[in-house]
Amino acid sequence: MKVEDVWQDIERVRNDAPLIHNITNYVVMNNTANALLAIGASPVMAHALEEVEEMVNISSSLVVNIGTLSVPWIESMFRAAEAARERGIRIVFDPVGVGATKFRTNTGHEFLEQFRPTVIRGNPSEIMALVKEGILTKGVDSRYDSEAAIEAAIFLNKEYGSVVSISGEIDRIVTADRIIAISNGDPMMPQVTGLGCTASALTGAFIAVDASPFEGAVAAMAVMGIAGEMAAAKAGGPGSFQVEFLDALYRIGEHEIRRRLKMTQESIG
Amino acid sequence: MKVEDVWQDIERVRNDAPLIHNITNYVVMNNTANALLAIGASPVMAHALEEVEEMVNISSSLVVNIGTLSVPWIESMFRAAEAARERGIRIVFDPVGVGATKFRTNTGHEFLEQFRPTVIRGNPSEIMALVKEGILTKGVDSRYDSEAAIEAAIFLNKEYGSVVSISGEIDRIVTADRIIAISNGDPMMPQVTGLGCTASALTGAFIAVDASPFEGAVAAMAVMGIAGEMAAAKAGGPGSFQVEFLDALYRIGEHEIRRRLKMTQESIG
Amino acid sequence: MKVEDVWQDIERVRNDAPLIHNITNYVVMNNTANALLAIGASPVMAHALEEVEEMVNISSSLVVNIGTLSVPWIESMFRAAEAARERGIRIVFDPVGVGATKFRTNTGHEFLEQFRPTVIRGNPSEIMALVKEGILTKGVDSRYDSEAAIEAAIFLNKEYGSVVSISGEIDRIVTADRIIAISNGDPMMPQVTGLGCTASALTGAFIAVDASPFEGAVAAMAVMGIAGEMAAAKAGGPGSFQVEFLDALYRIGEHEIRRRLKMTQESIG
Repeated sequence: MKVEDVWQDIERVRNDAPLIHNITNYVVMNNTANALLAIGASPVMAHALEEVEEMVNISSSLVVNIGTLSVPWIESMFRAAEAARERGIRIVFDPVGVGATKFRTNTGHEFLEQFRPTVIRGNPSEIMALVKEGILTKGVDSRYDSEAAIEAAIFLNKEYGSVVSISGEIDRIVTADRIIAISNGDPMMPQVTGLGCTASALTGAFIAVDASPFEGAVAAMAVMGIAGEMAAAKAGGPGSFQVEFLDALYRIGEHEIRRRLKMTQESIG
Repeated sequence: MKVEDVWQDIERVRNDAPLIHNITNYVVMNNTANALLAIGASPVMAHALEEVEEMVNISSSLVVNIGTLSVPWIESMFRAAEAARERGIRIVFDPVGVGATKFRTNTGHEFLEQFRPTVIRGNPSEIMALVKEGILTKGVDSRYDSEAAIEAAIFLNKEYGSVVSISGEIDRIVTADRIIAISNGDPMMPQVTGLGCTASALTGAFIAVDASPFEGAVAAMAVMGIAGEMAAAKAGGPGSFQVEFLDALYRIGEHEIRRRLKMTQESIG
Repeated sequence: MKVEDVWQDIERVRNDAPLIHNITNYVVMNNTANALLAIGASPVMAHALEEVEEMVNISSSLVVNIGTLSVPWIESMFRAAEAARERGIRIVFDPVGVGATKFRTNTGHEFLEQFRPTVIRGNPSEIMALVKEGILTKGVDSRYDSEAAIEAAIFLNKEYGSVVSISGEIDRIVTADRIIAISNGDPMMPQVTGLGCTASALTGAFIAVDASPFEGAVAAMAVMGIAGEMAAAKAGGPGSFQVEFLDALYRIGEHEIRRRLKMTQESIG
């Protein structure tokens, strides 16, 4: 995957404005809707059991995020994912806080078993907790580098076929055959709530336009990292960072991708 | 309606600080509360079946927005609207996404039948979908100019007595006898989530202070468009636009109204 | 309590990054999560009955805010508070809108009776309504100075042992033995939604690191007020105020505390 491919994906999102159906958490709904709009996609947030199938059917991809999980929402997430699977609509799964409680961990496991999502995007501790119970995540924070979760990611890819996108200081997009590492981003990003959720939403937009979900997932993390650097250059703290980050998604051009992208292929094992 | 009338309505909102009861969607609650505060109104967000009647009874108007609809929220919306109707409290209805799913379309139709809202505020595809099923809205986006929805708006006014406020590049406020078009605003506005919902919330504030719901609805759209222009003059993208928009609502003065307002009366048919 | 103590509490929050479990309202979730991150704490938002006990057990304090109350959320709030009580985890209770509806007032009373929260943080009308029914709060606005609520606060402290933190033009932190008044802050703060809720969340962070809940509550209100002044110095309205406020929480240093803090001990009765 090259610089041109990332840029081409951005242009596709802007041209196609794919409709991305998000069933996500209360904390980040506004941010992720705005991030999708800023990059050029069309967000829809809808969670009623009565309508999720219909909404999925007019969407280009489905993003399921378990941040503020509850039983009625699980039902809707599962019904939406069922509809997506039947229609061949790609699914991004964000296992927020898996490992912190049994409720989350069990929901995560069941979701993987039943729907084999196209992409799983999480932080290292979440990715590890999807494999091995007993890795205690501290809420939604990450305490590990993405390298620590590569083995778990490969396992998940073999088991469910999912591309695994691990965010961290270095982001890694992983399958059993291929790892791409992206070293963009800024230390202020974990100080802003919901940027991981935004990464999942953007992944939904990019896998809606790129034939390869692996490459779409890479493009999404590249855009996150570069927009993060653009924002950090102007921000005086996490408040202004958020504002500048949306502006950067809106303005990001080929020039920034060429100049900033730090993407390397890593060998496996 | 003249420039002075718009300005007088703003002064009334600022002096009276009317309490506006919002039953709205998760995505925009924060934005609409802040927009109401910035213009000088008092927002309250409350949706429990156990309290909506009491909350409506101390409010100056009720805004019902079906953005992230679900069955328990419908019950509360209907109970609140029932209480508003009994007490003669004005209702703004925002039919977000009507036309996208049967669930939304049916809810929209039932709401109109039962409560005949004072103002219906939506984008052109939503307004058309309230009349004619089979106009498929793409999520919450508008694909039509407001002109395309005038006929539907007139029909809705005749059927339910509602003033219909259609947002678009040109906003049009419509009854069977009268159309006012407002050509303010900025192309960046559709790139920010929830500005339509904000328009509905502000409409709630202005019809709380203006004896004429038609003129209140016009004033609200005038303020939206002018604040949008003020924000766009300073914004570098949709992130900073949001911030500047709230600042503009807070600071908007008679001078800006006089200088910027593009309001014309249009003939019908 | 001295300037040094406030500063020491900030350093502790930044060093310990305590996990704060919030069961709060939809309107402010994003803001309060970001405020906690900006000051250096770790927020978690989780409300499912199935997981709140587990989440409380890994948290350093619990913040319960009844802003957008509903029956299922009350169940979760009560179960979480029960778990917190059993484990000796401190609780902040924010009685948003108590006095506006019977539903809120009753919930507030029951919560106090059952859990005797470590800190109650509200505006004057809410604090008074917790004591005396019939004080009608106008939604979530305050119509009283904090002085008017001192008597009620002392009553609540005697009855439930809670420290009472009353926000207003002057914030007052009250027990039966001790009142500290903080005269920091800015008139723009009530124009931004959810800053009261943010005060409650920060109180959760500070009582997680200070052995004295009274002093932790004071430190939180001192930080709110000073960050508010720092933000107001840069803001052009309530939109930019929000952004600058988060930046200020992130950047606040010993210098600002020394220079700005207006804290006085008041005599009782």
